[in-house]
Amino acid sequence: MALPSFVRIVEVGPRDGLQNEKTHVSTADKIELVNRLSATGLRTIEATSFVSPKWVPQMADAAEVYAGIDKRPGIAYPVLVPNLQGYERARGVGVAEIAVFTAASEAFNRKNINASIDESLERFAPVMAAAQADGVKVRGYVSTVLGCPYQGEVPLSDVARVARALHEMGCYEVSLGDTIGIGTPAKARAMLRAVAGEVPMDALAIHFHDTWGQALANILACLEEGVAVVDAAVAGTGGCPYAKGASGNVASEDVVYMLHGMGIETGIDFTKLVETGVWLASRLGRETGSKAGRALNP
Amino acid sequence: MALPSFVRIVEVGPRDGLQNEKTHVSTADKIELVNRLSATGLRTIEATSFVSPKWVPQMADAAEVYAGIDKRPGIAYPVLVPNLQGYERARGVGVAEIAVFTAASEAFNRKNINASIDESLERFAPVMAAAQADGVKVRGYVSTVLGCPYQGEVPLSDVARVARALHEMGCYEVSLGDTIGIGTPAKARAMLRAVAGEVPMDALAIHFHDTWGQALANILACLEEGVAVVDAAVAGTGGCPYAKGASGNVASEDVVYMLHGMGIETGIDFTKLVETGVWLASRLGRETGSKAGRALNP
Repeated sequence: MALPSFVRIVEVGPRDGLQNEKTHVSTADKIELVNRLSATGLRTIEATSFVSPKWVPQMADAAEVYAGIDKRPGIAYPVLVPNLQGYERARGVGVAEIAVFTAASEAFNRKNINASIDESLERFAPVMAAAQADGVKVRGYVSTVLGCPYQGEVPLSDVARVARALHEMGCYEVSLGDTIGIGTPAKARAMLRAVAGEVPMDALAIHFHDTWGQALANILACLEEGVAVVDAAVAGTGGCPYAKGASGNVASEDVVYMLHGMGIETGIDFTKLVETGVWLASRLGRETGSKAGRALNP
Repeated sequence: MALPSFVRIVEVGPRDGLQNEKTHVSTADKIELVNRLSATGLRTIEATSFVSPKWVPQMADAAEVYAGIDKRPGIAYPVLVPNLQGYERARGVGVAEIAVFTAASEAFNRKNINASIDESLERFAPVMAAAQADGVKVRGYVSTVLGCPYQGEVPLSDVARVARALHEMGCYEVSLGDTIGIGTPAKARAMLRAVAGEVPMDALAIHFHDTWGQALANILACLEEGVAVVDAAVAGTGGCPYAKGASGNVASEDVVYMLHGMGIETGIDFTKLVETGVWLASRLGRETGSKAGRALNP
């Protein structure tokens, strides 16, 4: 149970957080959010998503956002792309890193993108090929790793198979997402172990939503298994439209507070991160979803 | 890292939760709360507090509440008592179990009860003697075990010394409280280990507040150390008047969801517990503080 000495936080608020918020956020505010996050010490900030505006209108300004942010040296600004069309839009504004996604649940893929898992992986092939040719790094997401709103249980072997496929296709890192926030620590641990049998641990990340209040406990269990990359969203924005309840991504502030309290470095200025969360919450017209953020700014 | 197979939840909502809520709760509602909790499968429900109404007006109806609740066989209904006067009031309505409390922080004791730790322990002596003579069980609380709003760091040796003193004075169980919710898992684990060197693990309980969002992760770390009694408050009520932020006790529902998800039994009906939390929140005129509660009742 050797905990990592450094954990890299992948800030997904500008994408996974905002794409699931109902409040309109202006392009200027999205750009300011990423720029503020860049000043906190974060090394990876998922900036936006080049999905179809028809499906995710919140991200219709992806090109303007990406073009508008200050790209600081040493910080990666991946963007989500669903297909070759999205990839080409992203490349049009000079994106250097992308993220692709699929679910470990057959039922979820069927409902969400009308494809089987294998078909969804096949759809990535041209994206992966183009990215490789362009020298663009690719991160992979696997969702529904601890349960699915449609099929319920998701076999660990399916999670491991999908993660392995993404890794073999060229994803430098595969993020394992409990999109509906339903998992508990023992299951999270078992899932990570199963995947780590197929993909090296240093190519894995974890991605928890706090829908059932379990995210931080799940993260702790996974840190104990050796994972050292954690996705989180400042102010705890987001949530999954398919999941019940109001909670979104685990709040970056709460994760950083825990890590620093355990002597694990992140390179992040906690106070600046909290200030960014409070600023974002004010733009969303609500209280920050981070308890650590509220505790520091009562 | 053998997790316990059964965890006893000590429900502290009617006392620790409500004493720190600003909204007035009627005596009838307090009685109904305890009665509803009694129907969930909980085995220990802290029913009220016989502190001076001058200091805690929320608990001025302690005698009426205790007299009014249905005492079910097999369920303990401890009440908090600060001194012999409180003890006698409690005995006047036939209380069979009490809880006493002190802080591990010298500064907190000085500010809170104008006494040193040793003096606060001395004040319990007549209460303990009376309880022993009356065959009344005594539970002990140690607060500020992971930090103090006045002195900051609290030496683990002080926590262990106070816990041991309470145990030696006759407390059958000592609950270790991070009253300000400031701790993180590695510190919680180290604290529990230090105390377990002085008091048998099966006489220890843990008591976390979620002020900084860390409660469930801290509980997980302590379960891994072998503790099997966890204090929690339905709907996450409460909070510490000395602590920043709005969050209170860890929500019983979130703890039970985690435990059941890990295959650990509690004897509690999760759905009934959630319903009780939603009912209580409606009485307090706000949303339940339990994320699992919100997820089940969106």
